[in-house]
Amino acid sequence: MTISNLLFNTPPPSLVPQQTHTRLSKRFPTCQLKSTTTSLTTPTHLSKDYKLSWLPELKTASGSESSGEIIQQDELFQDLVDRRGVDNVRMLIVDSVNHAKAGHPGMALGMAEVGYVLYRHAMRYNPRNPKWFNRDRFVLSAGHGCLLQYVCMHLAGFESVQIEDLKHLCKLGSRTPGHPENVVTAGVEVTTGPLGQGVANAVGLALAEAHLAARFNKPDAVIIDHRTFCIMGDGCAMEGISNEAASLAGHWKLNKLILIYDDNHNTIDGDTSLSFSEDITARFSALGWNTITVDNIHDDMGSFKGALSSAFNETERPTFIKVKTIIGKLSEKEGKSKAHHGTFSDDDVKQMRARVKWEDREPFHVVPTVYKEMEIQAECGANLEKDWNTTLRYFQRKYPKDAEEFKILLNGGLPLGWDNSLPRWSKSDPVDATRGYSEKCLNRLAEVIPGLIGGSADLASSNKVHLHDFDDFHQPNSPWGCNVRYGVREHAMAGISNGIALHGSGLIPFAATFLTFSDYMKNAIRLSALSHAGVIYILTHDSIGLGEDGPTHQPVEHLAGLRAVPRLLVFRPADGNETAGAYMVAVGNRNTPSVIALSRQKVAAHIEGTSVEGVMKGGYIVSDNSGDSLPEIILIGTGSELCLCEGSAEQLRSEGRRVRVVSLVCWQLFDAQPCEYKEHVLPRSVRKRVSVEAGSPLGWREYVGEDGVVHGVRDFGASGAYLDTFRKFGFTEENITRIAKSLLEK
Amino acid sequence: MTISNLLFNTPPPSLVPQQTHTRLSKRFPTCQLKSTTTSLTTPTHLSKDYKLSWLPELKTASGSESSGEIIQQDELFQDLVDRRGVDNVRMLIVDSVNHAKAGHPGMALGMAEVGYVLYRHAMRYNPRNPKWFNRDRFVLSAGHGCLLQYVCMHLAGFESVQIEDLKHLCKLGSRTPGHPENVVTAGVEVTTGPLGQGVANAVGLALAEAHLAARFNKPDAVIIDHRTFCIMGDGCAMEGISNEAASLAGHWKLNKLILIYDDNHNTIDGDTSLSFSEDITARFSALGWNTITVDNIHDDMGSFKGALSSAFNETERPTFIKVKTIIGKLSEKEGKSKAHHGTFSDDDVKQMRARVKWEDREPFHVVPTVYKEMEIQAECGANLEKDWNTTLRYFQRKYPKDAEEFKILLNGGLPLGWDNSLPRWSKSDPVDATRGYSEKCLNRLAEVIPGLIGGSADLASSNKVHLHDFDDFHQPNSPWGCNVRYGVREHAMAGISNGIALHGSGLIPFAATFLTFSDYMKNAIRLSALSHAGVIYILTHDSIGLGEDGPTHQPVEHLAGLRAVPRLLVFRPADGNETAGAYMVAVGNRNTPSVIALSRQKVAAHIEGTSVEGVMKGGYIVSDNSGDSLPEIILIGTGSELCLCEGSAEQLRSEGRRVRVVSLVCWQLFDAQPCEYKEHVLPRSVRKRVSVEAGSPLGWREYVGEDGVVHGVRDFGASGAYLDTFRKFGFTEENITRIAKSLLEK
Repeated sequence: MTISNLLFNTPPPSLVPQQTHTRLSKRFPTCQLKSTTTSLTTPTHLSKDYKLSWLPELKTASGSESSGEIIQQDELFQDLVDRRGVDNVRMLIVDSVNHAKAGHPGMALGMAEVGYVLYRHAMRYNPRNPKWFNRDRFVLSAGHGCLLQYVCMHLAGFESVQIEDLKHLCKLGSRTPGHPENVVTAGVEVTTGPLGQGVANAVGLALAEAHLAARFNKPDAVIIDHRTFCIMGDGCAMEGISNEAASLAGHWKLNKLILIYDDNHNTIDGDTSLSFSEDITARFSALGWNTITVDNIHDDMGSFKGALSSAFNETERPTFIKVKTIIGKLSEKEGKSKAHHGTFSDDDVKQMRARVKWEDREPFHVVPTVYKEMEIQAECGANLEKDWNTTLRYFQRKYPKDAEEFKILLNGGLPLGWDNSLPRWSKSDPVDATRGYSEKCLNRLAEVIPGLIGGSADLASSNKVHLHDFDDFHQPNSPWGCNVRYGVREHAMAGISNGIALHGSGLIPFAATFLTFSDYMKNAIRLSALSHAGVIYILTHDSIGLGEDGPTHQPVEHLAGLRAVPRLLVFRPADGNETAGAYMVAVGNRNTPSVIALSRQKVAAHIEGTSVEGVMKGGYIVSDNSGDSLPEIILIGTGSELCLCEGSAEQLRSEGRRVRVVSLVCWQLFDAQPCEYKEHVLPRSVRKRVSVEAGSPLGWREYVGEDGVVHGVRDFGASGAYLDTFRKFGFTEENITRIAKSLLEK
Repeated sequence: MTISNLLFNTPPPSLVPQQTHTRLSKRFPTCQLKSTTTSLTTPTHLSKDYKLSWLPELKTASGSESSGEIIQQDELFQDLVDRRGVDNVRMLIVDSVNHAKAGHPGMALGMAEVGYVLYRHAMRYNPRNPKWFNRDRFVLSAGHGCLLQYVCMHLAGFESVQIEDLKHLCKLGSRTPGHPENVVTAGVEVTTGPLGQGVANAVGLALAEAHLAARFNKPDAVIIDHRTFCIMGDGCAMEGISNEAASLAGHWKLNKLILIYDDNHNTIDGDTSLSFSEDITARFSALGWNTITVDNIHDDMGSFKGALSSAFNETERPTFIKVKTIIGKLSEKEGKSKAHHGTFSDDDVKQMRARVKWEDREPFHVVPTVYKEMEIQAECGANLEKDWNTTLRYFQRKYPKDAEEFKILLNGGLPLGWDNSLPRWSKSDPVDATRGYSEKCLNRLAEVIPGLIGGSADLASSNKVHLHDFDDFHQPNSPWGCNVRYGVREHAMAGISNGIALHGSGLIPFAATFLTFSDYMKNAIRLSALSHAGVIYILTHDSIGLGEDGPTHQPVEHLAGLRAVPRLLVFRPADGNETAGAYMVAVGNRNTPSVIALSRQKVAAHIEGTSVEGVMKGGYIVSDNSGDSLPEIILIGTGSELCLCEGSAEQLRSEGRRVRVVSLVCWQLFDAQPCEYKEHVLPRSVRKRVSVEAGSPLGWREYVGEDGVVHGVRDFGASGAYLDTFRKFGFTEENITRIAKSLLEK
């Protein structure tokens, strides 16, 4: 089999609908695509140059002996060149680690062939424009192997990774941090390191592609058509999140997702046999994946190219390629778990250099041919981008309405005036839970925001996040659908949402479950914040007010824990209008994730004094009868407890007290206000303050001051009717009034 | 096949070593068991009565036609009785839900046969003594189906679930909360509800059994020999934690673990086909499990008994039994996802009653025969316990040394004077990271505490938790080993640790990873606290001081998040002695989990003024030059920042300032001290206080007061050498001195 021939002449399968027309203004085709088999014909506007530029030209047309010889000669030559490229990748890895005296070379050395083949032959990208929309996405889920990515990116011509950057590996402020960070290094798609996360991110990226392709592509104009590649190691394979994500990828039939498993049989603690004896290929088969094993990549790179080729031809299933590698390949630590991290001895370096005939070269040397080889791929990418721009112009002319919507997405996803769609509530509106108000907000937003997509971890009806009149996402049945059914897989849901957000295509992902189960996805939420993924977490049943399900389902510490995450906005709205305000900020901030914590139980549609504008400041005065004086006492509440504060304030006022009620709906926003504003809302001289929140008291002292009372939940909740539970923990108007009075009388 | 015959005459496979002698005083056999095939012969001291009491006597000895007839008649009769029992289970479920107007009847109704067969025929337990040591363990991972467990427990004769309790389902203070809680209802082994956790707990319970069996059982005296049963639903199956745990169970060959999967094809959001199309049986096969499918339990309970029988015979692998059931069986919501939770209409109840000929019976009726049937199993259990006590007495006489160790375990695991083993450090000892001091503590403890068992999620060498001179746990190779190799599976590690702790056999589990990856196991940590599982979480690399690996690996918000968890002790020791102090409290409190946060970087072995006794109070004065006066300023530090405080204090003192340094090593313990003590350490009148901790500032205001300065990390960390990173975020003596001075000059 002429492997490279197969590899390079197989156009990527594209999700091109067989029908000619789709109407997208309502975010789903009205003329729905009944037949959704993928077309293997090259998209019209990409076909000509595509074949030429995708690769070095190979003479494969005729079946004659002579051309066969040419192919073989070409292949032989290409193989030699590739081997030199791989050598160069390895030597740069060794030099970088030894220069930095830090880093994880083991996986990088073992996967040098994989990295080189991906960047040199398989992936479509333009290093001059790392953000080119239709590029293939690459995720290094085994993020500790970042050197592999940095070195390949350098050779491939990414401006963001110069030799100088390799020399500054793991140095403060460098563009080559210890794990890949998308916000630091242009060309890195997502931030990885915590194992397994990247697999979920990759599923999210592939979902985004499949979804947008179904919505926008035309038979004569394919504008979304790329693959997603992901490298994972043994650690990623063991983490539960990767199984969750892989199960979904199989279910959704994300055939353009290629997961490459670095089977190096080593983890930090030793041989994988210590803790890992499952048949992982069989597991991925069971999850609905196409599975391929590459046994001997170090001697036969062609076998990996062949595997990729087979993956490219797969039209139904995502592909799992198990590549057997030797950790620390080339070094004396070859095959040993201690190769995982750490530097190389001078002697070892010398021997490595001898093995690849590198003796006289300076550290950080790059063979000019290797740069040139990589330049071929870069040029292909540049040409592909040009082609894509041509197609896009054609698309704009022929499908102006679709193009308009696509443009909104490319510009971040927020059409002018989107925020006007958010509903407002008045006092006379029927009461509901804040999750109910959220449902209305979300559905109104879905009508005007073309990129809103998301779902729940099997609690859509409880979280109230179903987008009515929209389909479920599923390929091939309804890839245009924007209700994502995650099943009971919170962690993958969050990781996938990060992938969707970081696809950079104006999709706005939301992810929902009970607040208490934010635990299951905590690390992915953290990564949303770290990687600037503006995911909206809709977390309902936000306190002991959940009631009967009991303490396992009643969050206590969760608001505190989430508030401590840097760059994460945590909202706990009190009524309909505050809920709308939370959405206003959450949706409007596309680089910052938000948590919106919502009640299960009913609260007023509108508490007199609450406002969207107030929410935007994080904290504000809801009511005050002090007139020109200062209040005697301030009651500070959030969420479902704000109305308790109001009720208690009413009582106190009726007894002649000057009482202010403050809503502290989002601490992070309030903290960011000017000092004058904060002093205005919570004057330092008003010493008597009570905070009321049915959650951990942690952090509240900041707002109530030394003399105030933090009224929170200091233990786990309890199973019982919600009012009984609230009563047990002292969340009644009477008890708050009692606390306030005893403070006033001090 | 005469199924019940097979089922009931198969003695459980026991891990009986083939050799006659083991010596356990060093916690592992010196005469190690080379051949570790499990013996299928019934343990000598249990054999006689065991067969008789295990079941209603069945005449199965001869192979003659006539006795075959007897069996069939008996079976037919038994089947009829069992059906009535199942009807009764269902009617009690219906009555309870409708009486409580709350609960999740869908799964309970669908799994009525499973519950009934387990409690009536399969499980060995003594309802009069739910804590009988050698009982089979049962875990309802699908905890929302708790009514099934409550009803079966009631019928089985557990004192903890009376009819009155069923009538108080989900009521505040009842013994029948909305999800099973081991601390509320005697006979419930673990607290479940958050999906997937129970599967990991069950693996922990099975691990504990295998481990202790290998250590203590003798060919002539088997004192540890039970099975672990676990029911999981679709949700549990989808959660990553269950895959992690199942992978480990397969790897460890926990053949006495039986996982029953309720395949009812429904989740809250609808048919499982919405999000779950994998071949779960193939997945479990890939994970190394024995897999069995029961297709039609509602019409043929025998098929389930047969599956159990086959599981009981399995000597190598854990068993996965997929039982196809109909959710909400019997009701009009049969087969529909809306059966998951909610009450039944009067009409529906009427029809259900008619279907099972229950028309004239009062609500909560129990057929006397059903009680009687269950009493047979209870008697069996009581007899088994008697037998076990006889065996134990024999064991004590014949193996007094082993028995002594076993007794320590049964008494909670802490031999007298265990705490004296903890090392102490002096100023002249070589510096190390607190993770290094921890390693010494842990290994000294391992010498004297017979139940210490645990490991790391593939970071044993980094976390420094390897117990030297002890084997790795693995069945059948070395089930006596107490180093548990969890692989990169933090969540399962924590869930399994909960199972080990709640096995109630004096095992003291520890679980280690980087502090930042506590995220991955947050919910299981929470459940440790809620269910009184005294797991010790050893979380190293506890700040931005981790350095090069960068922000994905540098915890920031984690201490705050964990401190907010009720009933969880969070320690951040500053040197060797504080580390020893942390272990003193953590090990000593067997019903309270602890987190010990440890540094990657080196700190002093002993800071003058720190002490184990200080740690036990949570916060204390480390140094103070104020004499009889009050200090001008208090610097409060934890962990690796305490020495920065000391350094800064030295500087300030040299400039004539009165400075106190306080270590606030465990907030929860400090908060629990009397007011006088707290006032003594942090006098309210000393307004100038600076807290120094390289983590989120959240919560610190409580200790520094309104006028103090909270010096923390307000953003994500950064990749860089640790000192550079510390400098970037202002964690240097100079900067702390600067902050202190500007405060002093205010």
